[in-house]
Amino acid sequence: MNIKYQYLRLANELEREIRTGRYRAGEKLPSLRSLRARTGRSLTTVYQAYAELENRGVVDVRNKSGFYARPQIDRILPLPASENRLIKPHRVAINALSAMIQNSMTAPKMLPFGAAIPSPALLPLKQLAQEIRGAAAGYATGKMIGYGHPLGLPELRTEIGKQAVGWYREDSGEEIIITNGCMAAIDVCLRSVARAGDIILIESPTFLCYLQLIEDLNMRALEVPVHPESGLDMDLLERALDEHDVRAALFNANFHNPLGCIIDEAAKRRLVETMTRRRVPVIEDDIYGDLYFGDTRPLPLKAFDRDGMVLYCSSFTKSLAPDLRIGWTMPGRFREKVKRIRFNAAIAVPQLGQLAIARYLAAGGFDRHLRRMRNALKKQTSDFALAVARYFPEGTRISAPKGGMCLWVELDRSLDTLRLFDRALQQNISILPGSLCSGTGRYNHCIRLNCGYPMNEAAEQGIATIGRLIREVGGG
Amino acid sequence: MNIKYQYLRLANELEREIRTGRYRAGEKLPSLRSLRARTGRSLTTVYQAYAELENRGVVDVRNKSGFYARPQIDRILPLPASENRLIKPHRVAINALSAMIQNSMTAPKMLPFGAAIPSPALLPLKQLAQEIRGAAAGYATGKMIGYGHPLGLPELRTEIGKQAVGWYREDSGEEIIITNGCMAAIDVCLRSVARAGDIILIESPTFLCYLQLIEDLNMRALEVPVHPESGLDMDLLERALDEHDVRAALFNANFHNPLGCIIDEAAKRRLVETMTRRRVPVIEDDIYGDLYFGDTRPLPLKAFDRDGMVLYCSSFTKSLAPDLRIGWTMPGRFREKVKRIRFNAAIAVPQLGQLAIARYLAAGGFDRHLRRMRNALKKQTSDFALAVARYFPEGTRISAPKGGMCLWVELDRSLDTLRLFDRALQQNISILPGSLCSGTGRYNHCIRLNCGYPMNEAAEQGIATIGRLIREVGGG
Repeated sequence: MNIKYQYLRLANELEREIRTGRYRAGEKLPSLRSLRARTGRSLTTVYQAYAELENRGVVDVRNKSGFYARPQIDRILPLPASENRLIKPHRVAINALSAMIQNSMTAPKMLPFGAAIPSPALLPLKQLAQEIRGAAAGYATGKMIGYGHPLGLPELRTEIGKQAVGWYREDSGEEIIITNGCMAAIDVCLRSVARAGDIILIESPTFLCYLQLIEDLNMRALEVPVHPESGLDMDLLERALDEHDVRAALFNANFHNPLGCIIDEAAKRRLVETMTRRRVPVIEDDIYGDLYFGDTRPLPLKAFDRDGMVLYCSSFTKSLAPDLRIGWTMPGRFREKVKRIRFNAAIAVPQLGQLAIARYLAAGGFDRHLRRMRNALKKQTSDFALAVARYFPEGTRISAPKGGMCLWVELDRSLDTLRLFDRALQQNISILPGSLCSGTGRYNHCIRLNCGYPMNEAAEQGIATIGRLIREVGGG
Repeated sequence: MNIKYQYLRLANELEREIRTGRYRAGEKLPSLRSLRARTGRSLTTVYQAYAELENRGVVDVRNKSGFYARPQIDRILPLPASENRLIKPHRVAINALSAMIQNSMTAPKMLPFGAAIPSPALLPLKQLAQEIRGAAAGYATGKMIGYGHPLGLPELRTEIGKQAVGWYREDSGEEIIITNGCMAAIDVCLRSVARAGDIILIESPTFLCYLQLIEDLNMRALEVPVHPESGLDMDLLERALDEHDVRAALFNANFHNPLGCIIDEAAKRRLVETMTRRRVPVIEDDIYGDLYFGDTRPLPLKAFDRDGMVLYCSSFTKSLAPDLRIGWTMPGRFREKVKRIRFNAAIAVPQLGQLAIARYLAAGGFDRHLRRMRNALKKQTSDFALAVARYFPEGTRISAPKGGMCLWVELDRSLDTLRLFDRALQQNISILPGSLCSGTGRYNHCIRLNCGYPMNEAAEQGIATIGRLIREVGGG
């Protein structure tokens, strides 16, 4: 991405200096005037740069006394522990538990720290409503009746292709297939490459819906531990593939759920090459890829896929329109089977929502919206981390996400976060207990927090309440 | 249903007289004056009754010479042959073929005799567009963001419950769960009660999507022949259950696809009792239930379900809003598993479409719309049957549907309708070859025609062209 504006370039430079430790947390930053003198830029540019950094949660502005470096998220608390022990493939049985928890999440007046959902305030809802009204005009004329194109609305597929410019090559034979959201894409892809009894390699901890899906399809999960900062360990991955007959793998290469980490490009390349050489299809969930906290959009695994072995899945659910549930897949060499299974399971995806999103994207405001949303999520996440550091017992560890909207919190090993979940629920606070993030029970002392909502007084009180409950439940 | 209007009561009486043979096809009916004298009703009422019967396709109006009985659909041509031989359970492999055919159906300017789709002209599109615009207002306020109620929008579930008044008992513990269309409901229900390798009992011929689903889930199909008039044979069904370890069954009790037949209430009751006694879950697809050609809405199997063994599935796709893909299931005693699998496969159904339909239903025009649509479908179906009788070779047999929008046409046994399909496609006519309606190949000489569009000049020419192609392909 080219940086168009002077102030953004300056903000990025300053952020790098803070990140690399040139300014410590709480340290005073150069005044407007001295920064103008030092950089030769206008006072307006310097002021805009600080305003941008305030939005990003990188600096605090104190009235009359100037600008201060805020604690960086990867310095607030230690990282969660990481293991490099392999776990045996196992049947999954977390569904009963997670159904109970999901039912509880939708209660009104609940503090929404459970499911990973952005605040409506972060979304361009007025524009979306306008595009829906525009799309509805097609109904009155009968144009939107019928099943539409079997792969999805052509206008939308064109816009999605534009978003993937640089790594999506239409002439490679790759196809974009629209689905009812990202999990529906993953469901269809998984059913296209594996069947009951097969071993599916996943990261650990992982996103609960993957585990549920694997359970529903009577497959087995092989969990490979993920480092909270550097992501999947390639050597460990190779060992897992040597020791087990893995039929398919399912990865979050960008902003792992729940850890928020990312693997670097060299590792991505090696990952795709390894899986391609071993002929193990890779299902990639890139739903958080646009929600990076750094300077540029990280490439997906798909960008390194020369042989069609990566089944890329994503959606607009986290970044634009949670309710419309418009997802897509680029299924590489598996496209014929994916098309067929998608058709059989769902017949079609409503054209109404597809057209509304295609119109929104074509109107050109998506990049600006994403930039605002990323800044907000980055700031919210560091606000949540600070609140956790303030209110949770000593010994608490947290992840240092590089994107997305989740924070992973590791508590004392003796703490049962299912009990914590129950107690929090009684206080109208929803959290995600770590027992749902593995089929093995080894994250029972962890929780995942959604940082999609701003840190206001109610949220801060919520975090304080959880801190108190942790001490009550014991182990703190 | 209470009949509110005098003219409707009179129209129903006249239709019964024509149906029971008191007037033969082509016979002149009483004049307005003589009918007024005979019935004691007003001239307006008598006139309205004839207009209604013209709409229903029961009488022809000839200028100046009066009213004539039209040929009744069950008298136009002989019924297709029916078998009572049982077929062994088999693995299904029709997907590759059907994908090719589905891709061809969506081409523009195609005569739409293939997929069962109603003409946009039969749908209340302006009102729907208005309700969508109304629902979109919820977006601007952020009210529709998030996943909503895990079972689906409460307002919509209430309206669906009202439609099922008389047989849906909320206090029985039954629940309505919203899905992304009817096939998604069936997919989830089938996955909830059976797994890979299991035998699923279905009717034969059947709806191609059932076969595809069974193939995708690696299950086996056991096809039980259906009589084109009386539907499923209960004795044959019992034999099938005796001889095979059937894990679940999937039935169209109302307006079987493709035959359009219905089983009577006594048979429905016996069917549910038999399956309940044998503990075989019944998935019921009632998508055509509202599109009856008779006087009243036939009861679904679910109405006879005392033990929660029927998983009822339906949607608004055929009757109201094809694009929105809002379906639902009432899964009886399997509800916890159905809820879970639905959640895992799709997470949520867009609230936008749910709210638009809930608003439409609450506004109260659905019954009137359905009445108009039923009349149109009934007339269109008999128009198609008449055109088939006129243009297809001698020896052709057709079904006499009692509802829905399909006509099943049996041609000479030596005719390969896949070749006919290819030839018709070259003429921009889409039909459904019978090879897709069974995994056994025994309907290769049959086709299914969609009667969802009005019989106009282009459609009549299309039927004439198919007639010509049948003779060319051979076997005619």
